Amino acid sequence: MFFSNLLVPILKNNPSEAKIKSHKLMLRTGMIKQSSAGIYSWLPLGFKIMKKIENIVREEQNRINAQEILMPTIQSSDIWKESGRYEDYGEEMLRITDRQKREMLYGPTNEELVTDIFRNSIKSYKSLPQLLYHIQWKFRDELRPRFGIMRCREFYMKDAYSFDLNDDEGEYSYNKFFLSYLKLFKRLDLKAIPMAADTGPIGGNLSHEFIILAETGESKIYTDKNIFEVNHQNCEINKISLENLRKNFDKYYAVTDEKYNKIEFDKLVKKEDQLETKGIEVGHIFYFGDKYSKPMNASVDYDGKKVFVKMGSYGVGVSRLVGAIIEAKFDEKNENMIWPINVAPYECVIIPLISKSDKTNLEKSMKVFNKLKENKIDTIIDNTEENFSSKMKKFNLIGVPYQILLGKKTDDDMLEFKKVGEESVKLKIDEIIKIINSKKN
Amino acid sequence: MFFSNLLVPILKNNPSEAKIKSHKLMLRTGMIKQSSAGIYSWLPLGFKIMKKIENIVREEQNRINAQEILMPTIQSSDIWKESGRYEDYGEEMLRITDRQKREMLYGPTNEELVTDIFRNSIKSYKSLPQLLYHIQWKFRDELRPRFGIMRCREFYMKDAYSFDLNDDEGEYSYNKFFLSYLKLFKRLDLKAIPMAADTGPIGGNLSHEFIILAETGESKIYTDKNIFEVNHQNCEINKISLENLRKNFDKYYAVTDEKYNKIEFDKLVKKEDQLETKGIEVGHIFYFGDKYSKPMNASVDYDGKKVFVKMGSYGVGVSRLVGAIIEAKFDEKNENMIWPINVAPYECVIIPLISKSDKTNLEKSMKVFNKLKENKIDTIIDNTEENFSSKMKKFNLIGVPYQILLGKKTDDDMLEFKKVGEESVKLKIDEIIKIINSKKN
Repeated sequence: MFFSNLLVPILKNNPSEAKIKSHKLMLRTGMIKQSSAGIYSWLPLGFKIMKKIENIVREEQNRINAQEILMPTIQSSDIWKESGRYEDYGEEMLRITDRQKREMLYGPTNEELVTDIFRNSIKSYKSLPQLLYHIQWKFRDELRPRFGIMRCREFYMKDAYSFDLNDDEGEYSYNKFFLSYLKLFKRLDLKAIPMAADTGPIGGNLSHEFIILAETGESKIYTDKNIFEVNHQNCEINKISLENLRKNFDKYYAVTDEKYNKIEFDKLVKKEDQLETKGIEVGHIFYFGDKYSKPMNASVDYDGKKVFVKMGSYGVGVSRLVGAIIEAKFDEKNENMIWPINVAPYECVIIPLISKSDKTNLEKSMKVFNKLKENKIDTIIDNTEENFSSKMKKFNLIGVPYQILLGKKTDDDMLEFKKVGEESVKLKIDEIIKIINSKKN
Repeated sequence: MFFSNLLVPILKNNPSEAKIKSHKLMLRTGMIKQSSAGIYSWLPLGFKIMKKIENIVREEQNRINAQEILMPTIQSSDIWKESGRYEDYGEEMLRITDRQKREMLYGPTNEELVTDIFRNSIKSYKSLPQLLYHIQWKFRDELRPRFGIMRCREFYMKDAYSFDLNDDEGEYSYNKFFLSYLKLFKRLDLKAIPMAADTGPIGGNLSHEFIILAETGESKIYTDKNIFEVNHQNCEINKISLENLRKNFDKYYAVTDEKYNKIEFDKLVKKEDQLETKGIEVGHIFYFGDKYSKPMNASVDYDGKKVFVKMGSYGVGVSRLVGAIIEAKFDEKNENMIWPINVAPYECVIIPLISKSDKTNLEKSMKVFNKLKENKIDTIIDNTEENFSSKMKKFNLIGVPYQILLGKKTDDDMLEFKKVGEESVKLKIDEIIKIINSKKN
């Protein structure tokens, strides 16, 4: 309820070690604290945002009937030797020897472990499809961790896996996740473009990266502007509708650096539709058929025949999204951040002008707070003794999207209400509640 | 909605490797799968139970204004050298060398890391008390992991830490957690007794273990029966009320093996009030003053003086509670499990008698399902083709507390409703809804 009770170690100035917007803002507003190279603790403000993102990810996975499980962080090297990736993975894999001298590792991804679960649990094709996901910590021992939680070593990720009888069904599962990701990013108020991508170390022949536009992005992207007009709102979860959705996206040129070809770009995209900008990867999906099921012997019985299941995997960086949203939304010049309402640490902050002799505004804050709480608006009161305008500036930076200002001229009915970066207006509390709640979904 | 879609690999017989009730039941009903010694994956049924427990733990922590944060699993050895525990911890600590040859470890507990966060964030006594908690995976490299998730290596735990100006305030924080734990276990329908305990490697001079009674428990306990009558319902969160609560418990003899003394027991407890039984530890709280704050230099400024903060720590094994509840609730002889309603994987199962020629009961199931769903009852339909009585037996084992049976004689208004282990009764759906919802809290 009161900001003064929270552990939010705000810094007066930008920390010198931070080079990109998200890293600066997260340190400055006390969202995270580095504990060692590329490893961070999440303090209350950052934790709350990440948790809200996690819950939206979960809701969207459940909506396509994916089942949540939870695999451990520490894995045996045995299954990685079975799949043939143990040596391939190189030094990015954190290798561990336990007290019994067994070779273990901290999972950088879970294709092997989930395939092991599948082959021990499912015997008949009648139990297909199986869509399984988990949200768990991963570790990749980056040579040079940097950019805060954007390129760190221990990170929080949702990874899902699909198991199907044949490629046709497998692609149907792939397309479900494709739609699910579009819905997810929309709820995070991000414009994410699905781009045909290389499959890299995961393998397979079909893959899309979901890229959001951000000037500070790590990858250069080249795209046809019309891709932004493709609408997924009316897409239903059936094969035809999902295939059409894929086609509607795939017909536009949209690639990252590594796949860019200037001649092709100019040939396929009219000059006025060409967009060259930068982006950040926020999701990556893969279809790789029997790449893991075959060496690991994950099969089902189909009409008396043994059929290796067809698999795909689907990742979203939950902790990374916190940074990606900042890269997309933070107006660094004006020091204004606006969190998308669905993941804001608080939806509204009440900022009372408090003087030593006059606490009436603080009392009023509590009344307003209770009214907002009754209407399920996640609110905080800045009861600190800082002056009025520093509190406003601090909260412009923290990024709670709406502010209610209780200053000198406050009357009882009309409240001064402000969206960060806009002018304030005088509104009745019921109107404020209506506005805030109308933005959530 | 349909059981047939879920990944629940039920075993026909008890697995031979399992020695205790919880391990047997969890493997048998496909709640977990071992991935390597002492390391488990949580499959949908087990995951759901653990998640419900986690959410109740979270609610009860928030209720005493503890703030949630999230510390990483991998820690630097540096802070453990500062506190002096790096060598002490022995082989149970999973030690890791990263690619840069830095000494890291998988956190078995977090006193050092949270103290480091505190000393970097809080400077003034005015910001006290700070109650911080996180729910995160821990690793203890047990020499002989056994009993499934009851004595495993990677486990999920809530650990909280309090920071206060002096011992008086510190004990007030300690008592808040004391009450919080009583409320938590009550919501899990567990009778937990707080027992004065040794502090062990955590250190300090004040500690309680919370022990639940279970015949298969690991520790022998000796207690005065009257301790079960101590009531915490009317305890309020203020110093006097909490102190009285502590006194009301502490006046009864209640110890584990290690502290047991027969002469004392006979002297302090009347013969007819003596209870010797077995128990399982489900929570442990410690007050250790400046044991960590002093070597790690975590202090606040108080009237110009530097004061080392007084700390306590408060643990609950979230994954362990899943097993502990089974140990307390599973009637192994009759193969009946009843999950406490607040953490049941589903609150109600609809079991329709289905034949190849007649699907009317399945249609009816869906109507009943929708009605229950509207009333926020977490329900599953067993649409599998097994026969009626095997479905009932299977669900007696899974432990969904309530069953609605749609058999041959089903009429439209009166449904056959059954609590596991009791006789069925005919009830209208509205009455069923009322009964189930009245049990939740």
